[in-house]
Amino acid sequence: MSRKWNFYAGPSTLPLEVLTELRDTMVDYHNEGLSLIETSHRSPEYDAVHYQAMDLVRELLEVPANYKILFLGGGATLQFAMVPLNLLTGDKICDYALTGSWAKSAYKDAAKLGQARAAFDGSPSGFTTLPVNGGGSGPALEASPSSSYLHITSNETIGGLQYKTWPVPAQGSQVPLVADMSSDIMSRKIPVEKFGLIYGGAQKNLGPAGVTLVIIREDLLERSPESLPAYLSYRVHGEKDSLYNTPPVFALYGVKLVLEWLKKNGGLAAAQERNEEKAGLIYGRIDRYPEIYRCPVEKAARSLMNIVFTLDTPEREKEFLGGAGERGMLGLKGHRSVGGCRASVYNGMPLAGARALADYMDDFAAKGGKT
Amino acid sequence: MSRKWNFYAGPSTLPLEVLTELRDTMVDYHNEGLSLIETSHRSPEYDAVHYQAMDLVRELLEVPANYKILFLGGGATLQFAMVPLNLLTGDKICDYALTGSWAKSAYKDAAKLGQARAAFDGSPSGFTTLPVNGGGSGPALEASPSSSYLHITSNETIGGLQYKTWPVPAQGSQVPLVADMSSDIMSRKIPVEKFGLIYGGAQKNLGPAGVTLVIIREDLLERSPESLPAYLSYRVHGEKDSLYNTPPVFALYGVKLVLEWLKKNGGLAAAQERNEEKAGLIYGRIDRYPEIYRCPVEKAARSLMNIVFTLDTPEREKEFLGGAGERGMLGLKGHRSVGGCRASVYNGMPLAGARALADYMDDFAAKGGKT
Repeated sequence: MSRKWNFYAGPSTLPLEVLTELRDTMVDYHNEGLSLIETSHRSPEYDAVHYQAMDLVRELLEVPANYKILFLGGGATLQFAMVPLNLLTGDKICDYALTGSWAKSAYKDAAKLGQARAAFDGSPSGFTTLPVNGGGSGPALEASPSSSYLHITSNETIGGLQYKTWPVPAQGSQVPLVADMSSDIMSRKIPVEKFGLIYGGAQKNLGPAGVTLVIIREDLLERSPESLPAYLSYRVHGEKDSLYNTPPVFALYGVKLVLEWLKKNGGLAAAQERNEEKAGLIYGRIDRYPEIYRCPVEKAARSLMNIVFTLDTPEREKEFLGGAGERGMLGLKGHRSVGGCRASVYNGMPLAGARALADYMDDFAAKGGKT
Repeated sequence: MSRKWNFYAGPSTLPLEVLTELRDTMVDYHNEGLSLIETSHRSPEYDAVHYQAMDLVRELLEVPANYKILFLGGGATLQFAMVPLNLLTGDKICDYALTGSWAKSAYKDAAKLGQARAAFDGSPSGFTTLPVNGGGSGPALEASPSSSYLHITSNETIGGLQYKTWPVPAQGSQVPLVADMSSDIMSRKIPVEKFGLIYGGAQKNLGPAGVTLVIIREDLLERSPESLPAYLSYRVHGEKDSLYNTPPVFALYGVKLVLEWLKKNGGLAAAQERNEEKAGLIYGRIDRYPEIYRCPVEKAARSLMNIVFTLDTPEREKEFLGGAGERGMLGLKGHRSVGGCRASVYNGMPLAGARALADYMDDFAAKGGKT
């Protein structure tokens, strides 16, 4: 079977050379006489992978020296809990920008642990807009001065929105900006110094599912209450460089290989250019054929990662998806909660894959919405 | 490089045919045109793996129908927190059997969340004994009637102790027995119906690091407080069959393959026989040469998984470990907290590996403690 163009939203397509390396080292890792996944996490072999992955994150994202890089389990969903558990102070007030499904999930957990406020609510627009200081047309997002932190979701995987600028708390404000970047981390350059904490599951742009990247400003580690159980404390993981307990070895190794691949291919500036070109091809077709395709998201807030579009009837969507399948493209069905179509074009998606989809969208439109 | 005999305590050796299958499916999974680790966790391909792993756990361990099987991230260390977070009720009293390092870690987290009691304390013996109703010579373990649960550690990976019988709470008692079985789950038959909850990280007997197995009696799911954040709630995971969020796909696939391998090789009765034979070979040498090797653990409580032994001086231990390395055996150094030697002989260790170590122990002893 030849390789498919894989538009899944996550887990998602990985660079072929990363998969090849994972395959070639699976039984015998670097002539060590065993697999890396059989190797103690206290061994020099694993240590090298662990710290190389950490160093590559620091280098590629230009993470300042006063930030710790952590690798944790449990996915971004565990971070929905860990962020408030660790960062809430005083009256436990925190601000959330409700921009879609994922922001709402994070908010829901925070509301169980503190006084979570909706500092922005995208529901009037059906979650198709972002705050004006996030690059959209909605009301500005600002944290209240008494807030423990301001939480945003940099890219909404289901809704297809992505921040273009960063709603940094007002000058003089001590409120740290916290971002769930699960679906766009490492897809573009970001000013890490503007954030207090960044987190993201690996399974979109970074590697296989099973590990979550957390980047936290060191002064915030001091907020972790002593009363927290060990695994839930950022401070504990920070003190042990994420080796407090057995890390998810394979997922971390996959992340290391993806980061090496990113570096070799020009780092994040080049990744961003590729991602803009890929998304541009597909949005270009949506805009060229408004009678066939429609993107519900306001233009300024469109995601470069998850391109959401609808066709005029469910039957036509089915026809479109069926034709895509015949052309070796999969994962184009929209999230079950919203329907429609979605093309996820993360770092691992080659330009040729985006072009194949754009060509198909041309053909489908030329045939008046038929395959 | 030929394959080494890998005695690491975890991550640890896996069956060669499992590694081979992981390798052969890494780039293209079952002719699907993509890797399983690139496949959506909402796809039929991943679904099949997920539910097959669950069904195999149920079949091999003979898990009764009123138990849920969960696969979570974060390792057993996260379970140290989740057990009390979910199971504590009323006055938040819970009982822990302190039998070694891992039991103490679990206890420490529980003490942050409730009134944790040391229902057994192995420290007078230097953690070389187990309770009499666990198969050892120490005082009997019994939960107080007001306890939310009684927690044991079925196998102490560092100390090398393993329960042989189960200290089931007194008849009529409603106190559920909770067991951390991280380092011996699936290595022998166990009466699941005697437990309220069993958990274990995969990376010893079950598969690659990155996933934790939890088996929970369904009535206990109702204890999960509504106030818990989603990822920390057993009830949430139970309701969604561990698909509430993206599972650690690769680790779960590895577990599925190991379980299939176990089934094909006679299930848990046969695994137990193999494990007894392997451990018997090594303990046999320890007992045969008391002037050379010494096992600190009382005989009745010796672990079949982690065989801990010392030599009379650090220099002789170094010589022993060096000679083992020359014979292609690795991971025999004891845990950094206790020193000495440790041979971990989990499910994945072939009989030939244990025999190679036993032969070397013969030679080393025959040469009067030299290589």
